[in-house]
Amino acid sequence: MNDLPTDFSAAHAAAVFHDFSTASPLVHCLTNDVVQSFTANVLLALGASPAMVVDPGEAAQFAALADALLINVGTLESTRADAMLAAVHSANQAGKPWVLDPVAVGGLRFRTDFVRELLPCKPAAIRGNASEVIALTGLASQGRGVDSLDASITAIPAARELAARWSTVVAVTGEVDYVTDGVRLWAVNGGHPVMTRVVGTGCALSAVVAAFCARGEDRLSQVATACAVMARAGEQAAAQASGPGSFTPAFLDALARLRQEAQICA
Amino acid sequence: MNDLPTDFSAAHAAAVFHDFSTASPLVHCLTNDVVQSFTANVLLALGASPAMVVDPGEAAQFAALADALLINVGTLESTRADAMLAAVHSANQAGKPWVLDPVAVGGLRFRTDFVRELLPCKPAAIRGNASEVIALTGLASQGRGVDSLDASITAIPAARELAARWSTVVAVTGEVDYVTDGVRLWAVNGGHPVMTRVVGTGCALSAVVAAFCARGEDRLSQVATACAVMARAGEQAAAQASGPGSFTPAFLDALARLRQEAQICA
Amino acid sequence: MNDLPTDFSAAHAAAVFHDFSTASPLVHCLTNDVVQSFTANVLLALGASPAMVVDPGEAAQFAALADALLINVGTLESTRADAMLAAVHSANQAGKPWVLDPVAVGGLRFRTDFVRELLPCKPAAIRGNASEVIALTGLASQGRGVDSLDASITAIPAARELAARWSTVVAVTGEVDYVTDGVRLWAVNGGHPVMTRVVGTGCALSAVVAAFCARGEDRLSQVATACAVMARAGEQAAAQASGPGSFTPAFLDALARLRQEAQICA
Repeated sequence: MNDLPTDFSAAHAAAVFHDFSTASPLVHCLTNDVVQSFTANVLLALGASPAMVVDPGEAAQFAALADALLINVGTLESTRADAMLAAVHSANQAGKPWVLDPVAVGGLRFRTDFVRELLPCKPAAIRGNASEVIALTGLASQGRGVDSLDASITAIPAARELAARWSTVVAVTGEVDYVTDGVRLWAVNGGHPVMTRVVGTGCALSAVVAAFCARGEDRLSQVATACAVMARAGEQAAAQASGPGSFTPAFLDALARLRQEAQICA
Repeated sequence: MNDLPTDFSAAHAAAVFHDFSTASPLVHCLTNDVVQSFTANVLLALGASPAMVVDPGEAAQFAALADALLINVGTLESTRADAMLAAVHSANQAGKPWVLDPVAVGGLRFRTDFVRELLPCKPAAIRGNASEVIALTGLASQGRGVDSLDASITAIPAARELAARWSTVVAVTGEVDYVTDGVRLWAVNGGHPVMTRVVGTGCALSAVVAAFCARGEDRLSQVATACAVMARAGEQAAAQASGPGSFTPAFLDALARLRQEAQICA
Repeated sequence: MNDLPTDFSAAHAAAVFHDFSTASPLVHCLTNDVVQSFTANVLLALGASPAMVVDPGEAAQFAALADALLINVGTLESTRADAMLAAVHSANQAGKPWVLDPVAVGGLRFRTDFVRELLPCKPAAIRGNASEVIALTGLASQGRGVDSLDASITAIPAARELAARWSTVVAVTGEVDYVTDGVRLWAVNGGHPVMTRVVGTGCALSAVVAAFCARGEDRLSQVATACAVMARAGEQAAAQASGPGSFTPAFLDALARLRQEAQICA
């Protein structure tokens, strides 16, 4: 296993994104209260269909119908946890991929115990910041709430261990995103610091990761492309925006434009 | 009963909207988690006052004070269902109109059973897409989640049957919106495809329908005008926007501008 | 005690804001469902870190770690009330300030009883409109839902009484904001009427008040500066915006710009 990450190539991303842009995956999002609207709009801009179905019984029903499932524990409550577990089991039975966003996991007990229960349930991918990924492997973390004080590079060993242990793909995102399946390790560059001043960019990325996981067999490529598309849209939007407020509409416009370009250019 | 829809006239819409623009109806919104902020901003742009009061006891109290009530089952949970039932009964007792948005009704059991319980409670209007309206009448539907795969025109028979059976007004929205009270059938043209790439335009329309139902006696005219105003704002915003992100602020600006114009022009 | 308010000075605000702009307070927000995203984005634009942790057990844990806590009862439900009480007690034990936003208090029973229970728990500040502040003192109010029909100036006696009785700072906001610690009474001018046509400007101000309360000892100065910064950003954004839709991105941009200027200019 090579210790140095390989840069994820633009040509590789373009091919995967082209395939994605021809589809319209239905993504069942069980996510936190803060980012629901933004998450839905990000998926819609990329041509995917978001649906938030939260009643435990309905969540189980719907997870089997949807193309992918997102589990984000940002504002976890006990009834939502029930819905999440029911949805995960249903997705697994139906052979649909699910993605875990372990927001602020580590110190906070309820979500940490819950995420520990979820890890053996075969997530297709896990997307978190460095603190969260490190916390998931049981290593010491400097996390304080939802912000990571660790650079993403520090979490590479944890990401690899996590991916290998649970046979999943891990994306640890930050100034540079690293994605790994435990063997391969790719770096995805791009993005812009203003993205840390807008709530939900990370959470929405996890939803996009779920949407991409609905396509194709090579999960690492799908996850890396999700990161690359969001980073590229972030750069384009930041170049146009005057601050974090004007960034958001510009970001959604950029995603829709990138998708259109991807449809045309094979 | 004529089988062909009549185009809803611009002059008719202008007269109803002028009346609306002089008022400031208080709309009690029991709606889904994803669209709360957008729904509130749409109502505010139109000069209405949104309020989301969700505790079952308070919801009953508040529904009697508000001018209209919206019930949207998009992210229905059992405690919210209790609040909705309490609010509907209270609104009925106080003689206040309530509007039903049966999001994704059909296959999902909890909401379908719940909506079945609500239908006899005399909604002033029902606003849904073709799949939802067809599902409400018990006909076969191609709905998959919140998106309709049926064109709105295919739901005209179902809309008429539903309106007649429950003595209500039904708006089935899509590329063309059709509104009917079971006898009259009007087509409302306009809108723009980008509205399907922004979350909550349909849900917000239902809230606007509720706001309009607080005014005047001819419900069909009120509901048709709500559809017409949203469609017109959508066209204007789409002409200005570069994508689904810049559409949203432009849409809210257009609603506020249309209201100002409606206040001036009787 | 002087009956006439003193204008809060721009120089005073600049000094307090400079100090604030060098920090990055972590604000635990237990707020209503409608404004979560906007509240988070306002805090992020000002360099603060929002976190919404809502499970009762986690809320207690997290309130002790965060720098300040916001309690907003806009969409109060019984499980959320449990989390709020747990968080308030934990914040008090840890010596962290908490701020109360008593949305629509007065007529609605559940929240009114709950707020009555919270008042003796030593809020660092209370931010409300005139109707809410008057209701808190048990005086007659003309409140109807979340909008105040009273001008802020009419609530000055109530604000003073409330501040004195509970040893807190009260901000009663409206066309002019008044802040008082029961002895001093300051007027904060600025803002723009369009702010009443965008959901969450008041709720977000309460979160900003909480963030400022994490800094410095003179609470009245902190609260007044929070009001002044939001009012100034509102003016700047209104000057740029074409309506309530374009106001929101411009407002967040203005907050981020004001913070940058405050960092440079001591």
